[in-house]
Amino acid sequence: MIALFTDFGLNGPYTGQMKAVLHQMAPGVPVVDLFADAPAGDPKRSAYLLAAYAPWFPEGTVFLCIVDPGVGSARPAVFVEADRRWYVGPGNGLFELVRRRAGSASSFEISWRPERLSASFHGRDLFAPVAAMIARGDEPPGRPLGDDADRRPDWPDDFAEIVYVDHFGNAMTGLRASMLPPGARLSASGRMVERARTFSDRAKGEAFWYENSNGLAEIAVNSGRADGDLGLSVGTSVAIAS
Amino acid sequence: MIALFTDFGLNGPYTGQMKAVLHQMAPGVPVVDLFADAPAGDPKRSAYLLAAYAPWFPEGTVFLCIVDPGVGSARPAVFVEADRRWYVGPGNGLFELVRRRAGSASSFEISWRPERLSASFHGRDLFAPVAAMIARGDEPPGRPLGDDADRRPDWPDDFAEIVYVDHFGNAMTGLRASMLPPGARLSASGRMVERARTFSDRAKGEAFWYENSNGLAEIAVNSGRADGDLGLSVGTSVAIAS
Amino acid sequence: MIALFTDFGLNGPYTGQMKAVLHQMAPGVPVVDLFADAPAGDPKRSAYLLAAYAPWFPEGTVFLCIVDPGVGSARPAVFVEADRRWYVGPGNGLFELVRRRAGSASSFEISWRPERLSASFHGRDLFAPVAAMIARGDEPPGRPLGDDADRRPDWPDDFAEIVYVDHFGNAMTGLRASMLPPGARLSASGRMVERARTFSDRAKGEAFWYENSNGLAEIAVNSGRADGDLGLSVGTSVAIAS
Repeated sequence: MIALFTDFGLNGPYTGQMKAVLHQMAPGVPVVDLFADAPAGDPKRSAYLLAAYAPWFPEGTVFLCIVDPGVGSARPAVFVEADRRWYVGPGNGLFELVRRRAGSASSFEISWRPERLSASFHGRDLFAPVAAMIARGDEPPGRPLGDDADRRPDWPDDFAEIVYVDHFGNAMTGLRASMLPPGARLSASGRMVERARTFSDRAKGEAFWYENSNGLAEIAVNSGRADGDLGLSVGTSVAIAS
Repeated sequence: MIALFTDFGLNGPYTGQMKAVLHQMAPGVPVVDLFADAPAGDPKRSAYLLAAYAPWFPEGTVFLCIVDPGVGSARPAVFVEADRRWYVGPGNGLFELVRRRAGSASSFEISWRPERLSASFHGRDLFAPVAAMIARGDEPPGRPLGDDADRRPDWPDDFAEIVYVDHFGNAMTGLRASMLPPGARLSASGRMVERARTFSDRAKGEAFWYENSNGLAEIAVNSGRADGDLGLSVGTSVAIAS
Repeated sequence: MIALFTDFGLNGPYTGQMKAVLHQMAPGVPVVDLFADAPAGDPKRSAYLLAAYAPWFPEGTVFLCIVDPGVGSARPAVFVEADRRWYVGPGNGLFELVRRRAGSASSFEISWRPERLSASFHGRDLFAPVAAMIARGDEPPGRPLGDDADRRPDWPDDFAEIVYVDHFGNAMTGLRASMLPPGARLSASGRMVERARTFSDRAKGEAFWYENSNGLAEIAVNSGRADGDLGLSVGTSVAIAS
């Protein structure tokens, strides 16, 4: 399976052109849209989101990940093998948390180049072909990346900010719920919320946080929208209180 | 074929994770997004929409339907067989109109449980696997639902409200056009509109209602947006005048 | 491969129903969403967008194209063969630029009719079945279109307007970059912008135009949104200065 993690949106021409490459080069391999609305141009927050969602997928999955504000600049083009899953995309920190949390992981610089590489759409011209090659079982076309250019050792293990707001207005933090004290409360935008098991444990309109289905601490309002009701958006700081 | 009917949105991680389950458990079965923007958290209005769109699909289609504000609460998890199509999802009334309009229909409580069931994402952990099992031809994993917990006998046969606003601003009612008198006019938000055959029968900017391509009475404006121009949104009441 | 080019949106029921037809009638043929947000009800601007994106696809691709404000009126239903690619949709000018730029091209009127043709959704009932027939290798069901009813000879070869705003706020013009003088500047909404190779060649917040990955002149702002920052939307005029 190939899973897409991008900030491209589904509507425009970008996701479709990448899928056209994947269907041609790796026919029969299912392609799944995981996120098309990762934090736009924001590899750091995207990295915490990706690391929370990727391990749920089966071993062998290839993640084609494009959050690439530096396309056309000097950032390396990489793929990462981590716990028997593959990640293809820009080496701008996007895979930092996947690597850090993996039992074993290696980064490679992509050594393959297409006949024609556009300046602005490496997702289509470079990364999608490499993802297809790996998914169909070719020898991954790379050499070990020596200088850790894709790593970001200064980023925290968990990130006390909102990293994603979903379709329902629920606000995901970059904090793994399992790393928080059992009775921890979260404070954001001047509001303190307590932990609940899930939505139906709270009264309508009540705000709370809970461990979402991929392990992140997420702030929500039962039958409401946490983003609008509490003033949360990607980048809002979160504080932890016990 | 498996058709998705949810309020999850296409962008977020929810639809993608469900599709990952379906591709793994029912490989080769086409998966089609019917609605990803069913009325959010609103099984009643969603039920009229689903009942209008499902019969168009061929026999044997499995509908994976998640509009589930009560996830984690006591509502039953069900599947319904109705006129040789299958419906999998929460037993919160979502299948009431499909059942009521079917020649033959039965409800079953899902008896299968996954190894790990998250509190908030039964679509991925419970309903998608069951949809995949049915689509690949397994014995459907359920027992007859005895207490009619999924039925809503008090809901009307046709619903005089806006139940969906589409990408163009057209406002679908929960009324089947075939149940309305031939010369019926519809009134909503203080405006009365007459029936037309289709858009091109009316002048630009003119409001009308027509039988849409799945049989619902839909209010539209030629070359305009009925939602903005007439003040219509999901939940707006509609009155029928002759 | 079948590529979809529509103004239907991905969320609603329209794209999904067309895909259901395609999967049933041409099983195993990959279906890719190219644009679901082509300029709404606007065949002219859509025509310049389609002509820029279609040639990137491999020969043999079938484009199912629905931007059809006149559905239900007298516009012909057509398919076009142009440079060994196929285009199916309304003959309202949507294929004018594809035809004009092709080495060889012919238009055909669709001679096939479904058992039941809705007044408002020819995409599902007429065009998708014909696209499926062509994609699976049937004899294309048409007769030569004699009267040039689908042509628009008065439209310019390149169109000095914004024809699409993407997910990032970048504003595509209907101008091919290769047709502009090397040092050309573009002026729109009272702002003059110079050419750059790509985003990373400009300072953050700076506006410029560049040749996008499909050859169109596109106005963008590094780390910003050209639509909001410069006041650009579909239909904004663009002037060329040297």
